Order: sequence, then structure tokens, then C-alpha cells
Amino acid sequence: MKIALAQLDYHIGNFEGNLDKMLAAVEQARALGADLVCFGELSVCGYPPRDFLEFDDFIRRCHASVEALQKVSHGIGIVVGSPSRNPLVEGKDLHNSAWFLYDGAVLGIQHKALLPTYDIFDENRYFEPATEFHTVSFKGKKVALSVCEDIWNVGNENPLYTICPLDEMMAEQPDFILNISASPFDYSHAALRIHTVRANVERYKIPMFYTNNVGAQTDVIFDGGSIVMSPDGLVFDEMPYFEECLRVYELAEVQQGGRSVEQPKEKITLIHDALVVGIRDYFRKLGFKKAILGLSGGIDSAVTAVLAAEALGAENVRVLLLPSQFSSGHSVDDARELAKNLEIQYDMVPIRPIFETFESALKPYFEHLPFNVTEENIQARIRGTLLMAMSNKFGHILLNTTNKSEMAVGYGTLYGDLCGGLSVLADVYKTEVYDLARFLNNLPLGIGGKAGVIPQNSIEKPPSAELRPGQKDSDSLPPYDILDRLLFQYIECRQGPRELAAQGFDEALVTRVLRMVNMNEFKREQAAPVLRVSSKGFGMGRRMPIVGKYLG
Amino acid sequence: MKIALAQLDYHIGNFEGNLDKMLAAVEQARALGADLVCFGELSVCGYPPRDFLEFDDFIRRCHASVEALQKVSHGIGIVVGSPSRNPLVEGKDLHNSAWFLYDGAVLGIQHKALLPTYDIFDENRYFEPATEFHTVSFKGKKVALSVCEDIWNVGNENPLYTICPLDEMMAEQPDFILNISASPFDYSHAALRIHTVRANVERYKIPMFYTNNVGAQTDVIFDGGSIVMSPDGLVFDEMPYFEECLRVYELAEVQQGGRSVEQPKEKITLIHDALVVGIRDYFRKLGFKKAILGLSGGIDSAVTAVLAAEALGAENVRVLLLPSQFSSGHSVDDARELAKNLEIQYDMVPIRPIFETFESALKPYFEHLPFNVTEENIQARIRGTLLMAMSNKFGHILLNTTNKSEMAVGYGTLYGDLCGGLSVLADVYKTEVYDLARFLNNLPLGIGGKAGVIPQNSIEKPPSAELRPGQKDSDSLPPYDILDRLLFQYIECRQGPRELAAQGFDEALVTRVLRMVNMNEFKREQAAPVLRVSSKGFGMGRRMPIVGKYLG
Repeated sequence: MKIALAQLDYHIGNFEGNLDKMLAAVEQARALGADLVCFGELSVCGYPPRDFLEFDDFIRRCHASVEALQKVSHGIGIVVGSPSRNPLVEGKDLHNSAWFLYDGAVLGIQHKALLPTYDIFDENRYFEPATEFHTVSFKGKKVALSVCEDIWNVGNENPLYTICPLDEMMAEQPDFILNISASPFDYSHAALRIHTVRANVERYKIPMFYTNNVGAQTDVIFDGGSIVMSPDGLVFDEMPYFEECLRVYELAEVQQGGRSVEQPKEKITLIHDALVVGIRDYFRKLGFKKAILGLSGGIDSAVTAVLAAEALGAENVRVLLLPSQFSSGHSVDDARELAKNLEIQYDMVPIRPIFETFESALKPYFEHLPFNVTEENIQARIRGTLLMAMSNKFGHILLNTTNKSEMAVGYGTLYGDLCGGLSVLADVYKTEVYDLARFLNNLPLGIGGKAGVIPQNSIEKPPSAELRPGQKDSDSLPPYDILDRLLFQYIECRQGPRELAAQGFDEALVTRVLRMVNMNEFKREQAAPVLRVSSKGFGMGRRMPIVGKYLG
Repeated sequence: MKIALAQLDYHIGNFEGNLDKMLAAVEQARALGADLVCFGELSVCGYPPRDFLEFDDFIRRCHASVEALQKVSHGIGIVVGSPSRNPLVEGKDLHNSAWFLYDGAVLGIQHKALLPTYDIFDENRYFEPATEFHTVSFKGKKVALSVCEDIWNVGNENPLYTICPLDEMMAEQPDFILNISASPFDYSHAALRIHTVRANVERYKIPMFYTNNVGAQTDVIFDGGSIVMSPDGLVFDEMPYFEECLRVYELAEVQQGGRSVEQPKEKITLIHDALVVGIRDYFRKLGFKKAILGLSGGIDSAVTAVLAAEALGAENVRVLLLPSQFSSGHSVDDARELAKNLEIQYDMVPIRPIFETFESALKPYFEHLPFNVTEENIQARIRGTLLMAMSNKFGHILLNTTNKSEMAVGYGTLYGDLCGGLSVLADVYKTEVYDLARFLNNLPLGIGGKAGVIPQNSIEKPPSAELRPGQKDSDSLPPYDILDRLLFQYIECRQGPRELAAQGFDEALVTRVLRMVNMNEFKREQAAPVLRVSSKGFGMGRRMPIVGKYLG
């Protein structure tokens, strides 16, 4: 039996686009002699569809896609992910299901039982869990069909859940496991995923075919990396990360044993690849081609510009240099050098004349008051307004260049440098941005394939917002290496003040930093969506009260 | 037996503040001879605490508050809401519980079984449902203790749930039901709540004491309206809406029969009262006193200014008149008249000089291109920057004045008129804003208690953004009476294109409006939190994909 896995990039709610893509994959699989082709979780509508699921019309369209696939299933089995209606009056209206289509009929439907409701996931909001588990008989084989999270409680070791769906199917002696997933990327997740697939295979001693979605849905990035694992617990194949892919496997070969082929999982490489896909998909799915951003001469905007050029092509990236009277000469030089290295369009619009008109308009009110954060914010907002003006006039999307350290402590101006349609680096700590810059400087991205596009000075100089004379980040923030370790423990690991002190962080620093994080929730509430690359990014995965007083 | 209900305004994560408030209420109840005093759901930490619940330290502090209450429970029973730890390895780590404290001990704990996971609610994200249900014996009575949603599946008629917690307790023959709630306001909810309490009382033929929280937690507003209902299904007492309150009831009297006392539930009055509390609590809980906003002469900013003056006092509201070259003379007159009527501080900062500097900075790029939405947005962003500058310099919070109709269709400028710390009207449709204006004009809010503070012209003139010569909202939007009915059906009622056409809406209009709503999700993603007054407000209660293509 030949089994095709189709690792595709679906677009939420784009029923025509998703169906066309799946129909083409069915024909490709058929041409390659496949008996069965498998798509990912909720593939008809894209994952996560969120509250679109509450629209009856949306569910009808999902089912129309399933029916269209059913019609082309003559001679080839098709496993597709779609919501299905819960026939019972009680419980949520929908199930999250894998549909097994064959010869124009529905051969079986397996609903998902383990509904992730944590971090970015809201499945209990929409779905009723499965209570029945049966294999599907197909061409003389028995298939243990499952959806995503249902393989993540092997041996009942996951404390979140009380049942283990595959255990329930084993009495029927399935020949192999098929799992259709929408398992989002973070830089540690691919390793975890292989570990989980292996735990299942070792428990049940049968092969597993695991199809994952690929591509970004705004903030959430799916990395693909679909897995075929042999009963010996070795990887028979791992599909590429961040690319669409369709491959056909002979079941008998997979049963004979794996080949231990696994891709390297280097953190900065993965983050880089994820961010490039994240940018590319955001533009493509919204129907935009061109990005704009402000280039300050600093490291964050430099890295963002390089990633944008990689994602969209240098010809589609435009930058503005927006110096103020506080910008140092080298900042403009560094920014210009980067733009030249990347061969991207750049223009310079000094903001001083505009700043001065603001000053004179506000003079009656501010006259006898000292220069403070107000004037710093005005400069940042002038820049935001200029960038948005160019973006509005010429149809760019403005990319935001804030990093995770700044976003965490609120070191940034709402409606100023926090402007943008997409935040590229706000899940990447400042210290990781440096790693990313060094990584990028090893790539042949310059003219004639030259490496080192980011000026060394942008990497080496002390970070500064340059919003008042001689300003340095270190005037108001702890050193980034300490800050980032502390933020990681608080944000990713959810350690409280007592635990942080026990880890050796200075107590006064802990109090100060946690307070900064919590007091700035109002800024993150209004920030652009953030490409998620860690296990705890800002956005839907981290839901904090704004008026909360805790540690504030 | 004397039972005190304490309807209090808790502050999320403000453990000291919440505890002090409850300790004072215990002493007040004791002084009034109460045998028992009941607080609301998650009263120790405030509701909804969101992901703070994932911090072990946060749970420890909850338990420290419970212990502090336990210590003062000599001679008086105390029912308090707090998370409790799930002792089992499997399932979520926490329960959402009602703790019954008495004489220094824990007399009983009842966990919540029905965990709302829809709209603004995420309880399955944090809590494991109860599986055991027992009454608590207290001073010779048996108490059926329950938390919020657990009374909302009476007779198993709620399709969301499969169990009915109170049914499970009835074998123990309780004397009365006690429910501690955090049941948020929308303008139709108070009536529904009484209906639900009545359905329980009619089923079980025993009295119910229902305590609700009051006050706003950013966007979510709790209206109080705690209920005591007699076994005859008549209301014995309904506590005031939007105010803290503590009252003591003699159980024997309640058992004898209700008095049918219910407060009027007029939609616009309720919305008005909710918005005033929403503003007041946002400021108080963030430690701010003063609001600023831009006054355009239009209806939305006029209504927002009046509400702010009611909530914070006229002396704490400051407005800016920010006319451009496209502002009509009457706009400035209307704005000035309102400011004078309200006796609030107003200043005028014409934006033309700043707009002209932007024009000249952008001239090299825009020179031969027509005036379009870009220039409209620049004006809106200059206003946003000026308002934020004043707010930064003098410590105001900027109030956003966008209404729900505009917010729905994206008729507004991101980082411009969408700026603000809190959006007062973005859950109030334009047609409802007019109702609110007429309501406000009947109140004695002017100098010397005069009515009619909002100039008639602001109410009667055709709405316009005044961002280009002669602009009217009706140039780009359908008439608001039609638009609002359509939006209500789409947003509140989740009707799709087919159903809307069947309701008689023009098909082309439906396509156009639904597309506008869905294409503008990116703006709402970055908008200020919205005071929620309807059953479907923008924010956490409505979660839509940004790159979604559905109806876009």
C-alpha cells in the first residue's frame, strides 16, 4: 500500500484556494500510484479558524469542500481534516474530525478527543471531544486514524488528559497509525514532536504516518516536518520544515525499518526560517507584495530589513531613514550602508522640521516644562505617521521591528515605533536578535552573493533609541543578557518572584522588571500581531489582564 | 439564620485591596448579626484573572487570602471564591471553587462543574470541572453551594452542558441554594439572570441567594444585581446595579415568599450606567484620575466627553479641539459649546501647520499623486499624536471615541482616531449613540443642573469625519439604520450571507459590508480595549483570524 502525505500551506477561510490545492495534490498522489493521500488538521478551512467556526455558513462551506474531495476519491483514499457537526443536542456543536473518503463515500470519521485549550489553543471553545474510537478498514488494512493532540497523551503520561485515544483502538489491531496535525512551530517543538511520535510507535509497535500543516496564519507558524516512523522507532522520513511537500511511501518498506533520517534542529536557523515564512505568508495571504520599514541604523531594524528582503525580494522592500536632531551620524551611515548592501530602495526624511511644528503647536501648554518622555514619544509618532503615510500611498505593509525584550518591558512608543501590520521580532529576545544578525551575516545576501550585509557597527554599538542626547538602552534597562534570562524565566517558564530570587536574580531587579512587564500590558494589547517562534509569544498565547494589579 | 450578600468590586490581582474589602464586609455583616456572609466568584483575586492563574505564586497568594478570612470566621460563616488546587495528577491544575469557612476551619469546598468557554470566557483553559456535589451543613441547615455557571443548566436545558450540579445535590435535601457569581453585564443579561434564578427556584422549591460581582475589569463590566429569590419564584430582593452593596436577609422571611421587587431594565439606561462605571473603574484600577479626548463637534466625542465627566468629574476631563482646514465652523462651535456646558477645560490646537510640514516632508514622494485616504490618515494621526502628547505630559488617559459601527467596518484611522487607552463607545452602534445622546440630554449635567448639554446641532447634523472637503459618512457607508441592523445580525447573531439575504437585506450590500468587517480585523487587533455592553463586543469575546479570507 502506497501512502502519500501532503504537507500543505492552507489559508484560513479560503475554501476555493485550499480545495484547489488539495485537488491538485490528489491528482499528483494518484499519478504517483498512491492508494491513500492525507492532508492536515482542518485542512478544508485552515487552522486556526477561530470564531468563524461559530458561523453555520462557514461549516456549510467546509462540508462542501469535503464533498468535492469525496467526488474525486474513486480509487484513492483521501484523509482530510474538517469540522463535523455534533448530532447530539448536548455539548458543543462541532467536532474536530478526520474524514476518511474513498470511492465516493465516507469510509469513516474519527473525531478528536484531546482538545488543546492552553497557550494559543482554544479548542474547547468550539469542539466536543470524541468518545468513540474505531479503526478504519481500507484495502485490507486497518488504520488507526487520529487528529493532532490525540497522540500527545501516550501511556496517559500527559497530565492534561485522562484518556489515550490510540489505546482505545488497539483491540482492533490496526496496521498503522495516521495522524493529521496542525502543530505550530516554536524553536523547541520539532524535537518534541519526533519524541512524541516515537513514544507512540514504541508503545504500539506499528508505523506512524504524521502529516503536519505548513505556513503561517498571521502570528502562528506551522513548520511542517511531517514524519514517517517505522515500528523500530527510527525515522523513515521527515519532510522539510517550512515548505510544502508531497511524498509517497510504501507501507511495506516503512514496516521493515527506519533510516534514522532527521533534519538538524538548530535554534537560530529554525527561528530564521520561521520568520521568513511568517513574513512571506502574511503578505501573500493578505494580497500584498511590498513592505516598508524604518531603518534606524540599529540592530533590530537591520535584521527585520534583511528578513523582509529574503521573504519578499529586495525589490519589494523599501526603507525610510528618519533621523532626528538626536540621531548620531553613524546611525544614518549604518542604515544607508545596509540598504546599499541589500539593494533595497531607501529614502531619508529628517523629522526635525515636523518635530518643531509639534513643539510650537504645544508651546502654549509645555513652555515651562522640561523635555521628557513626551517629546521622545512625539518623535517616534512622527516616524510612525511618515511610515504609515508611505505605506498608505503606495500599498506597503509596515513591518514593526520591536524585539521581545523591549515589548516585554514596554520600552517603545505606542502609535510610534510600535506601529506596523506585523511584528517580526517581538518574540525574539534582544540577545537572540544579535545571534540572528550574526547568522544573517554568514548568508550570501549582499550584492553578488556577498556575506556580511549588516554593518558591523550596527551589531557592536551599544543599543540606543536616540530620542534624546546621548541616550542608551542601558540608562533605563538592565543589561540585556541579564534582562533576557529573567524575562525568559518569567514569561516562558512562569516563575514568580520567589522562584526567581531562589534562582539568584537580584530581588530588587526582579520586582522592577516584573512590574515593568505587567504595567505595560496595555501596550501589548494594542501591538501588531507577533510572529510566534518561542513556546510563549505575546498575543493569543499569553492572556493578561490590563487593569491587573498583580506584581504591578 | 441571617445571610449577608456582599456585592463588591474586586480588582484583579490586588490581593491586599480585595482582602481589606472583604475583611471590612465580614465585620459589617457580623455587626448586622449575620450568621453567614457571601462574596462573589474568585473574589480573592478578581475575575477574570486570565493567565495569572498559571503562576504558582498567584495561587499561593489566593490561598493566603482564604487563610486570612478563615482566621476571622469565628462565629460567622464566610463563603469566598478562590481557585483551589486539583489534587489529581490528571486534568487541569486548578478548580474554580467556593470555599465555605467557619470557626477557623474549612467547612466545605464546592468546585465549579460547568466551565464557560465561549465569548469572553476561557475557563477550560485553567480549570478542571467538579465531579462531586455535596451540600454543606451549617448551623443546622444544609446549603447547596454553587459557582456561577453551575445554575445555568437547570433541567439540563442548556445544550452546552451534560450535567446539572444542583440536581446532584437534591438527594441531600438542602434548605437553600447559594450561588457565587461573576456574571458580566450586557444590556440583556439582567433579565436573563432573573429568569435563570427563577427556573432553579421553581425546580427545587427552595430559596436562592445569588451574589454577583460588580465593577469593571478593563473591558468586562460586572453589574451586580445580586438576587434573593423566595421559593414562590418571586424576587425577595434585587441589589442595585453597578454599585457595591451589602445586605442581610433573614432566611425564614425569604422562605415565606417574595415581594416581586425588580429594578427596571431599560436598555439605554443600563448601557449608560455601565459605561460610566467602565470608565471610572478603568481609571481607578490603573491609578489615574484625569481623562483627555479630542472633541470634534460630532456626536461620538460629545457623548464620550459627557460620560467621562459623569465618571471622573468635570474637573478631571480635558478636551482638545483639533480643527483642520476641512473642519466646518459649526464643528468648532458645537465642540466649544459642549465644553462650556460641561464646564470642562478645553483648548484649541489647529493642525493645519503640522499637516503642512508633513506635506512638505512627503512632497518629493507624493508630489504628482492625488489627495486620498493617505492625507486623511495623516490628519487623524496628527490629532492622535497631539492628544497623546498632552496625555503623556500631564498624566491623562486618552479616551477613544469610536463607535461600534465604525469599528466594525474599519471606518477609522489606526494610530489616529483609533488611539486611546480605553474605547468607550466601540460596543455601541451609531444609532444607539444617538439614543444615548438624547438620554444624556435629559439629565441635569449642565451648569446649575441644566439639561441638554450636547448641542442639538451635534445630534442633528449628518455625520462626517471632516477629513476632506464636504465629506459625509454616507459617501462611503450605507445609512446607519440599515448598516447597524445588518451588523447586529452578523456580529451579535452570527448570521451568514445566505441568512442575511433571506432576512431581506440587499445581497450586494451584504457582501460589501461583511467584506468590510472581515478585512478590517487588523485594525481591531490593535484597537484599545472596548467597554463591553452587548452580548458580542469586540475584543476577547470575538476572536477572528487576521489573514482569514472568509467573506473577505
